[in-house]
Amino acid sequence: MKRLILSFVSMLIIGTSGFAAKYKVDHLEPMFWWTGMKSPKLELLVHGENISDLRPTINYPGVTLESVSSVENPNYLFINLIIAKETKAGSFDIQFKHGKKTILTYRYELKSRRKGSALRESYTSKDVMYLITPDRFVNGDPSNDNVKGLTEKSDRANKDGRHGGDIQGIINSLDYLADMGFTSIWVNPMLEDNEPSVTYHGYAITDFYHIDKRYGSNEDYVRLSKEAKSRGIGLIMDVVLNHCASEHWWMKDLPSKDWINFKGKFSQCSHVRTTVEDRYASKEDKKQFSDGWFVESMPDMNQRNPFLATYLTQNVIWWIEYADLEGLRIDTYPYSDKTFLSKWSKRITDEYPNINIVGEEWSTNPAIVSYWQRGKNNTDGYVSSMPSMMDFPLNTALINGLKKKENWDSGFINLYETLANDFQYPNPGNLVIFPDNHDMARIYDQLDRDFNLYKMAIAYVLTMRGVPQIYYGTEILAKSEHGGDHGYLRIDFPGGWEGDAKNAFTGKGLSKDEAAAQKFMKTLLNWRKNNSIIANGKLMHYAPQNGTYVYFRYTKKGKVMVIMNKNSDVSSLDTSRFHEMIQPGDSANDILTGETVTFEDKIQIPSRSVKIYELD
Amino acid sequence: MKRLILSFVSMLIIGTSGFAAKYKVDHLEPMFWWTGMKSPKLELLVHGENISDLRPTINYPGVTLESVSSVENPNYLFINLIIAKETKAGSFDIQFKHGKKTILTYRYELKSRRKGSALRESYTSKDVMYLITPDRFVNGDPSNDNVKGLTEKSDRANKDGRHGGDIQGIINSLDYLADMGFTSIWVNPMLEDNEPSVTYHGYAITDFYHIDKRYGSNEDYVRLSKEAKSRGIGLIMDVVLNHCASEHWWMKDLPSKDWINFKGKFSQCSHVRTTVEDRYASKEDKKQFSDGWFVESMPDMNQRNPFLATYLTQNVIWWIEYADLEGLRIDTYPYSDKTFLSKWSKRITDEYPNINIVGEEWSTNPAIVSYWQRGKNNTDGYVSSMPSMMDFPLNTALINGLKKKENWDSGFINLYETLANDFQYPNPGNLVIFPDNHDMARIYDQLDRDFNLYKMAIAYVLTMRGVPQIYYGTEILAKSEHGGDHGYLRIDFPGGWEGDAKNAFTGKGLSKDEAAAQKFMKTLLNWRKNNSIIANGKLMHYAPQNGTYVYFRYTKKGKVMVIMNKNSDVSSLDTSRFHEMIQPGDSANDILTGETVTFEDKIQIPSRSVKIYELD
Repeated sequence: MKRLILSFVSMLIIGTSGFAAKYKVDHLEPMFWWTGMKSPKLELLVHGENISDLRPTINYPGVTLESVSSVENPNYLFINLIIAKETKAGSFDIQFKHGKKTILTYRYELKSRRKGSALRESYTSKDVMYLITPDRFVNGDPSNDNVKGLTEKSDRANKDGRHGGDIQGIINSLDYLADMGFTSIWVNPMLEDNEPSVTYHGYAITDFYHIDKRYGSNEDYVRLSKEAKSRGIGLIMDVVLNHCASEHWWMKDLPSKDWINFKGKFSQCSHVRTTVEDRYASKEDKKQFSDGWFVESMPDMNQRNPFLATYLTQNVIWWIEYADLEGLRIDTYPYSDKTFLSKWSKRITDEYPNINIVGEEWSTNPAIVSYWQRGKNNTDGYVSSMPSMMDFPLNTALINGLKKKENWDSGFINLYETLANDFQYPNPGNLVIFPDNHDMARIYDQLDRDFNLYKMAIAYVLTMRGVPQIYYGTEILAKSEHGGDHGYLRIDFPGGWEGDAKNAFTGKGLSKDEAAAQKFMKTLLNWRKNNSIIANGKLMHYAPQNGTYVYFRYTKKGKVMVIMNKNSDVSSLDTSRFHEMIQPGDSANDILTGETVTFEDKIQIPSRSVKIYELD
Repeated sequence: MKRLILSFVSMLIIGTSGFAAKYKVDHLEPMFWWTGMKSPKLELLVHGENISDLRPTINYPGVTLESVSSVENPNYLFINLIIAKETKAGSFDIQFKHGKKTILTYRYELKSRRKGSALRESYTSKDVMYLITPDRFVNGDPSNDNVKGLTEKSDRANKDGRHGGDIQGIINSLDYLADMGFTSIWVNPMLEDNEPSVTYHGYAITDFYHIDKRYGSNEDYVRLSKEAKSRGIGLIMDVVLNHCASEHWWMKDLPSKDWINFKGKFSQCSHVRTTVEDRYASKEDKKQFSDGWFVESMPDMNQRNPFLATYLTQNVIWWIEYADLEGLRIDTYPYSDKTFLSKWSKRITDEYPNINIVGEEWSTNPAIVSYWQRGKNNTDGYVSSMPSMMDFPLNTALINGLKKKENWDSGFINLYETLANDFQYPNPGNLVIFPDNHDMARIYDQLDRDFNLYKMAIAYVLTMRGVPQIYYGTEILAKSEHGGDHGYLRIDFPGGWEGDAKNAFTGKGLSKDEAAAQKFMKTLLNWRKNNSIIANGKLMHYAPQNGTYVYFRYTKKGKVMVIMNKNSDVSSLDTSRFHEMIQPGDSANDILTGETVTFEDKIQIPSRSVKIYELD
């Protein structure tokens, strides 16, 4: 980091002496905006050598230049505009003047919003989202595998390298996804990650306004959104608010020392996440968590800087509006400044009242996770507007519940009691639930490659309250050969590359169990898709007994009964225990076999199996 | 139970045909009451064969007989009185009439309350309570070891038998307790437990208005309270609201079938405590937890019966008033009807606004424990008036924190993170904290008889936020030879019996470590006693690092720094990390050695030790 600081100092010197310099705008962001937004404010970041020597002017009906701010670094200007309600879409010049002389001109556009943009619908519990690591999914356009100006080159043999998956690949797979029954896709970050290596995950962003060219262009991203939407699939963007990349363009020329935490120098994040809620945490510990860097290649952004806070907020709104996003997923949610997060989440949900946003808080403690959900009455008065959070507690409990031996304090009771802790959430029905994701060993591995337990896990996730998320490949029993090693678990999706021997799209080369898993999931997804009981039904569950666990989803119109049996024998349940929900003589549809069954005094459940019964 | 039900039925027959029976009052409870209570209401339970044939009348200025209720069983009457505000203390006759003829007369007294009774002070974080299992503490009066009419006889050789400890024994030990520095005693139930066997624990109560004669009389209990108070020690009663004993007098003649849950027939409690908070629990499961019997010898009382609810509420008020109690501890708190608990806790705290009441909810989940504390904003709207709860989460975390190997997710981090979860409580500073209690293996055993870890545990409990509780014998390293077996862990206190070879009161026969433990605790207790930093100070803690954990208690006037080092080597801490609290050059008092130390740039902590530094 020392090098960067020095070059920053030398800029300052040029700034005071270099009046005769040739001016240009290197960045002006957001590059365009829209009329008719709820908030009339817009702040433009302008970056160019000594740009603060110049005075921007604007002349367009309805647009007022409220203020211009210069900061520590003379190469930046922040232009604050007010866009009046009735302002018409159109273009105008921003003239950068010195005295009366116009030195530079930037053509700025205010676009019209799509109809219904503000009140767009988002993902809900009626949806199932498919999580894609784009580099590893489908290589639809091998011509962009290597791109001039982007350092890391394609190397499919390297587990941590770029493999060539791209936007075109996702577009090509949309029919498959729609056919399977998915209705949303959450794609790991596709913004430019021009770090020297290990860039395929995309979380080290070097440009917040441009898609990485190895995936395609900004226009390709919009096309993906449109093509998906035409098939009933919404696009969810993976947003990183906490950090940028060490190779982000501004790291070479920071607007101010406080743009990056710890004055731009690496200091390891403690990962002690409880400091956020803890009323006894020292300021020292709070700082080391919130301001510490996730890793050295990901400088931690200081959202207490108001220009940066506005930049990050507008950036997300820009992408929602530009790419017609269905919703958002926020990376490392609690790692950002919590006051900023409160304002950020309010601003986004003010602008889009129905949007769904799911935050990642990797804690197995519902008290910590629920702290962030909109409507939680926190003892410290903290207010969040996050509609959803990732349900890590239930994920861990599901795995332990299925895997651990049955006992009074282990096995299904763990899953049952974790679900009981839903009383801590203002809205548990909107949590995102998942068997696995891009950061953990594949569910099939976590369940010791037990196909019966896998089916229980999938059935659970697809019938439980919440919005299910399935990681790509999990539908065909994807494995992670080297435990939880990220490079290995983010496998190339079979059939995504020309010449793949195995092909999940056609079924070619799939093992019997892999094909069966895919069919199992497809059956459930398509049944679930139009099922209002699963989407909106209430939940009732019964304390696990003798290795079995029973729950119901129900509305006034119908009921779904789910029974899991972990025993190696057939289990026999007394129907009378469930008298609040079912009666002997009731008939039900066995969703997995299609058969109709009639409940007698006992319900027999085959060994190590899950049953899903739907009743009118 | 069948036998009891049959005899109950035969009573009913007598009730309709036995007009000529000789009437008498077997029970009239509360036996007396007080004027000047906040609530003007008083309900008398009257029990006697066919008593409902008669009509009670009262003639006393200020006392109105509002209503008389008869119930299913004609052998009961419930008399509702209103005692006007200015009513004078005195006695009056309750005349039970048939027509105009007075058949029976009961002399009832309304006493004057002690001065300041309503606003009595209670235990707070300035106190440390000593928990006594009275049968096992001190046998002060061998003449009451066996009492006619009480079935179980003394048998000191039987681990589950009665050993002879009594009220006089506790009175005899008060000087020792005061000298040690204890300021409250919580004594396990001393009400009559006339079950056939295993009665020494006292939790199967056969008479809610009488002290078990093997401990002494009601008057002895009052004397204990008075003697304790004169030494600065408050008496805390152990209250059982959930169940009575199978040999309780009313079990032979229940007022109504709904007096006891499951219509008086044993049905095992599921112990699935989350059903109380769980928004998805089936009614079936809720019932099996809340209405199920703790064990077969403890019939589960149905507090939805309004007469029983009032009976239990008045009973507690009666004991507070009669024995001048400092506070209460409530057994198996969540097992009672939760609506009743809400009303019960409100009524008690309305009557005694400063009283402290601690409830037992044996859960390691702060979300579950905090659900019950007064001021918690529960998502289901449940309102509790319980000032305190037992801090089981911190107890478990303390043991794991000390015992488990240090790692990113184990050891001190567990203790640290559990404390961080205090954000869930409305008032964590009033929780009762403890190293062990009467239901778990002794702390010395839980810590594998490691004296260094023991000292850390004791130092932690005596310096942490909350009200510490120490189980009798823990000050002399009491052991529980057979793991957690209740009979064995509730050891006879050495010196409590004539001829004991070992004597904790005199020190005779104590091992070196036992004597050192006693001195260690005495030093801390007496230092703590008048220390406002410990009693009322704020708390700041630092995330554990390298096997050490540091926290501070602090007020504007001073600070206490506690450092625990689990390493086998000396640990060296950077003073600068704690700059919010201390600076190099600050001097402090080492509470355990009495020495004065001056902090330099590093603080050296000996291997496997705890340091307590006090700074002005």
